[in-house]
Amino acid sequence: MLQYALLHLFGYGVSIDDLKNFRQVDSITPGHPEAHDTPGVEVTTGPLGQGFANAVGMAIGQAHTAAVFNKPGYDLVNNYTYMFFGDGCAMEGIASEAASTAGHLQLGNLIAIYDDNHISIDGDTKCAFTEDVLKRFEAYGWHTQWVKDGDHDYEGIEAAIAKAKEVKDKPSVIKLTTTIGFGSKLQGTGGVHGNPLKADDCKQVKEKFGFDPEKMFVVPQEVYDMYHKHAAEGAAAEQEWNKLFEKYGSEYKDLHSDLARRLTRNLPEGWQNKLPTYKPTDAAIASRKLSESVLEAIHDVIPELLSGSADLTGSNNTRWKNAVDFQPPNLGIGDWSGRYIRYGVREHAMAAIMNGLSAYGTIIPAGGTFLNFVSYAAGAVRLSSLSHQRVIYVATHDSIGLGEDGPTHQPIETLAHFRALPNMMVWRPADGNETSAAYYMALTSKQTPSILALTRQNLPQLEGSTLEKAIKGGYVVLENKDANVTLVSTGSEVSLCLEAVKTLKEQGLVARVVSLPCVEVFDAQDKEYRLSVIPDGIPTMSVEVMSTLGWEKYSHEQFGLNRFGASGPYKKVYEKFEFTPEGVAKRAKATIDFYKDVKPLRSPLNRAFTQLI
Amino acid sequence: MLQYALLHLFGYGVSIDDLKNFRQVDSITPGHPEAHDTPGVEVTTGPLGQGFANAVGMAIGQAHTAAVFNKPGYDLVNNYTYMFFGDGCAMEGIASEAASTAGHLQLGNLIAIYDDNHISIDGDTKCAFTEDVLKRFEAYGWHTQWVKDGDHDYEGIEAAIAKAKEVKDKPSVIKLTTTIGFGSKLQGTGGVHGNPLKADDCKQVKEKFGFDPEKMFVVPQEVYDMYHKHAAEGAAAEQEWNKLFEKYGSEYKDLHSDLARRLTRNLPEGWQNKLPTYKPTDAAIASRKLSESVLEAIHDVIPELLSGSADLTGSNNTRWKNAVDFQPPNLGIGDWSGRYIRYGVREHAMAAIMNGLSAYGTIIPAGGTFLNFVSYAAGAVRLSSLSHQRVIYVATHDSIGLGEDGPTHQPIETLAHFRALPNMMVWRPADGNETSAAYYMALTSKQTPSILALTRQNLPQLEGSTLEKAIKGGYVVLENKDANVTLVSTGSEVSLCLEAVKTLKEQGLVARVVSLPCVEVFDAQDKEYRLSVIPDGIPTMSVEVMSTLGWEKYSHEQFGLNRFGASGPYKKVYEKFEFTPEGVAKRAKATIDFYKDVKPLRSPLNRAFTQLI
Repeated sequence: MLQYALLHLFGYGVSIDDLKNFRQVDSITPGHPEAHDTPGVEVTTGPLGQGFANAVGMAIGQAHTAAVFNKPGYDLVNNYTYMFFGDGCAMEGIASEAASTAGHLQLGNLIAIYDDNHISIDGDTKCAFTEDVLKRFEAYGWHTQWVKDGDHDYEGIEAAIAKAKEVKDKPSVIKLTTTIGFGSKLQGTGGVHGNPLKADDCKQVKEKFGFDPEKMFVVPQEVYDMYHKHAAEGAAAEQEWNKLFEKYGSEYKDLHSDLARRLTRNLPEGWQNKLPTYKPTDAAIASRKLSESVLEAIHDVIPELLSGSADLTGSNNTRWKNAVDFQPPNLGIGDWSGRYIRYGVREHAMAAIMNGLSAYGTIIPAGGTFLNFVSYAAGAVRLSSLSHQRVIYVATHDSIGLGEDGPTHQPIETLAHFRALPNMMVWRPADGNETSAAYYMALTSKQTPSILALTRQNLPQLEGSTLEKAIKGGYVVLENKDANVTLVSTGSEVSLCLEAVKTLKEQGLVARVVSLPCVEVFDAQDKEYRLSVIPDGIPTMSVEVMSTLGWEKYSHEQFGLNRFGASGPYKKVYEKFEFTPEGVAKRAKATIDFYKDVKPLRSPLNRAFTQLI
Repeated sequence: MLQYALLHLFGYGVSIDDLKNFRQVDSITPGHPEAHDTPGVEVTTGPLGQGFANAVGMAIGQAHTAAVFNKPGYDLVNNYTYMFFGDGCAMEGIASEAASTAGHLQLGNLIAIYDDNHISIDGDTKCAFTEDVLKRFEAYGWHTQWVKDGDHDYEGIEAAIAKAKEVKDKPSVIKLTTTIGFGSKLQGTGGVHGNPLKADDCKQVKEKFGFDPEKMFVVPQEVYDMYHKHAAEGAAAEQEWNKLFEKYGSEYKDLHSDLARRLTRNLPEGWQNKLPTYKPTDAAIASRKLSESVLEAIHDVIPELLSGSADLTGSNNTRWKNAVDFQPPNLGIGDWSGRYIRYGVREHAMAAIMNGLSAYGTIIPAGGTFLNFVSYAAGAVRLSSLSHQRVIYVATHDSIGLGEDGPTHQPIETLAHFRALPNMMVWRPADGNETSAAYYMALTSKQTPSILALTRQNLPQLEGSTLEKAIKGGYVVLENKDANVTLVSTGSEVSLCLEAVKTLKEQGLVARVVSLPCVEVFDAQDKEYRLSVIPDGIPTMSVEVMSTLGWEKYSHEQFGLNRFGASGPYKKVYEKFEFTPEGVAKRAKATIDFYKDVKPLRSPLNRAFTQLI
């Protein structure tokens, strides 16, 4: 509510009526701030620790963008990022990961204020949180200050912020010891965390601070005047900036148009011509390597693309050959203009930092980890979706096909999880053309994040795959109008299905094969097209080496793995679970037999009613 | 491999052949150690940071169990918990959360050794991890030591461990600066992290340490002798302990039988008689409150039950009235025998600590957070399942029904995620009897964790629900042999479906209603029973206010919410998305009409082939 109230005072598009509608259906003032819905809300927070890591992302965004665009006399990109956090955020692992990252990166443009009010929802922090927070931040390499009377010492706060701005080589945290619900009868207790004040308490607070206790939702004119004056100063500064930027354009034409373009979130014209395409005769390649080839091919034409990995660079193949690391120059291993981020083993912070990078507006972030460990980042991945951030998760080692690392690393539930998440594209490409298609869609979808599930093992280039077909999310790889069954599959299992077609043929059965690399994009196609892919009249069986959950939507029967995997060479693991041409064919035959008597046999895409979306 | 090799040397059931089968299909030596599969492996690790938090759980388990059972002259429970962690673990947020918890709890029985080898998968830790780790642990309240030459200084290591054992009021960390792959040609590089040494390197290492370079998988007899001597000492100590425990039984009969029983993982006889049951005339109550009533009713008869919450005690309703907090006595707010754990806002660590508590063998842990934030803990929840731990997640505020907190807190994808996870029971009870059933199954399933998805809003007590029916995972709440449609539902939507039956009746349509509080348990019933619940011949429609993904397995049509929710009073939110009797009835009618022409209309439970499980 404080954030909404301040936006109102500063003149953003948040009215008194919007404030009255706080936490009401279809208001722009939901229970926690959502970047996509409310003017002036820059990141979606509420889930604890997310805002902390978002701020680190925005500070990285500033440091990088400044290094690329600032020139002598043109200090174009020079903002500080301010972030408030409380005890709850400080306890969350994601905030620890992000704080360690910010300290390593020496983000002097980041100023955090720690609201040290000693209260969390369970009451006094004494019950669970007795560490020395400032000492911890010192250990991370932060500059630390403590304002002991945060309730009254405004000058101390101002001085601390001024000092923090002077510290250029470290992020700053200011511990502000405060009283929660200051002025309320319940001040200093958990009773003021989430509940509205009672009527009599409201009145006495208003009296205490010199307001008319009987009036509600009233802002004195002098308060408006003061905030509007600040807003006018901001607007004037924006005008100045616009002039400076125009002048910059006369001196640095290319950089000017690059930055102007980035702010529209449009990609450079013709960039897609750089996407690799493949012929069936090309070598079999793991899709994590195909992804690397895409990054290699496009990084020059999409300068806003910043790649990285959570300490799995060599496995995720996220780094193009001549990449420079984003690092403080004094470490001697990169610089601020670098476009490769070493996130460390910090998956959750990586995801939330990428949300912050995307929100900054000049960057498209891509970050790698194993698909199984995208789950470590689930809290932030969810906010990529909810806040419409163009974030790309490069999720390699996408199945039991990773082999020897075994069940602790082999995703089973992961794709079902993220397919159930609204506004998320989950791509599982089957070959090179599909991998390029996945990147095409991930990069051109300005409002939707993507998870690219990529193999460790080699995949053959399919006959019949093209980028144009694959960007529909699903298409027919092998057509046959006499087919007895449709096999629908993704990623590494598409070529397995094509092998199974031969096995079935030996038994006198005819199968057609569909690749469905992205169900969310396929769902968005018109019904006629979708029914041409998964038609009425013959049964459909899905094949994917993980949980079958959700495949019932696209198939009558499902061949998958509803148990944990096994450690071993991947071909042996596939054999153990019957993911072989014979294993697929056996089940396809059972499917054909089972549906022989059903009339009419509808495509699973035919539904009685439309889903709410 | 070090863990497997040591287990072999100490005489556990790990043979040389098992070592040769490292990372082979169906071996007991998978790529990462799994507690359920390999003798002597106590927790399943590999995903970074999990083992760290498991160790904190085991140390809590020791402190609590000692406080309950130790008596003068009977120091029965007095083990230290040893834990190794590397830079990767140190970077993970879960380890930070667990370390902060351990420091707060003053776990003097916990000794951690930090393998400070300066190498992670991306190479030198300089690229992402430059914080002062020991200083951070000091900030958490740990005792810290540094052995600077971990490659050679065995006496220093021994002395540091001895010192750590003396420190009784703080967990200890010993930073051991080492060379990764010590002795290899690739020592000090990432090249020895995960790859086997090359043949020539293997040979020179063996030579360097005085072994025959030509022999493979050979253990010199003097090495076996030394380890077997240690093992014999251990066996003798176990004999001593058994004698002491027997003697304890003569003096402390009840405590003796309690501890002996706990170690079998059986519950006390007759405990289930304490479970609350409800009549339809009883008041409507939120299932989070029903859960509280279960805990209130059973905590006395199940002394091994330790509850807790990630800083949402008052919202999760996880604390029985007279609960004592598990706290260091010197804080004055609890003691070591306390059975309520204040986890702080640390969901991921809470889950992994609970895995450690369960592995310790004398405790059944239950821990609360909002269902949406179980996702923060996904990495550890997965290992609850994989390692067969009896852990209970009390997941309240389970849907858009939480209302005002809004989309950032309203689960959409969460149940699909965890239903896709093997060996996990996801319960979403519809009323009091179903809530008791959920606890009955959660507590009696020794090898399976549970997530209990519970409402914030009140739910009526259903006519036709009983504990006996609900423990089948699914049952008919309202039967009608003339039904045109089956409505299958869970939790808060079951009573909505019963309302919709009346609306349909006004339109001349007849519906039966099925409650499916746990699909995993329902799946385990025999087919005849399952088909009596979701029969052939009439269509089935599912109703659940979140992602429909997966419901196709149990229904022909699905009414759910495949988008993010909304912030507002929960009844308004339900109305917005048409989760009203009219909204359900409209879709049920469409379902009836759509399937009229299909012959035979099979139950979705009829499948062409059986899934691999």
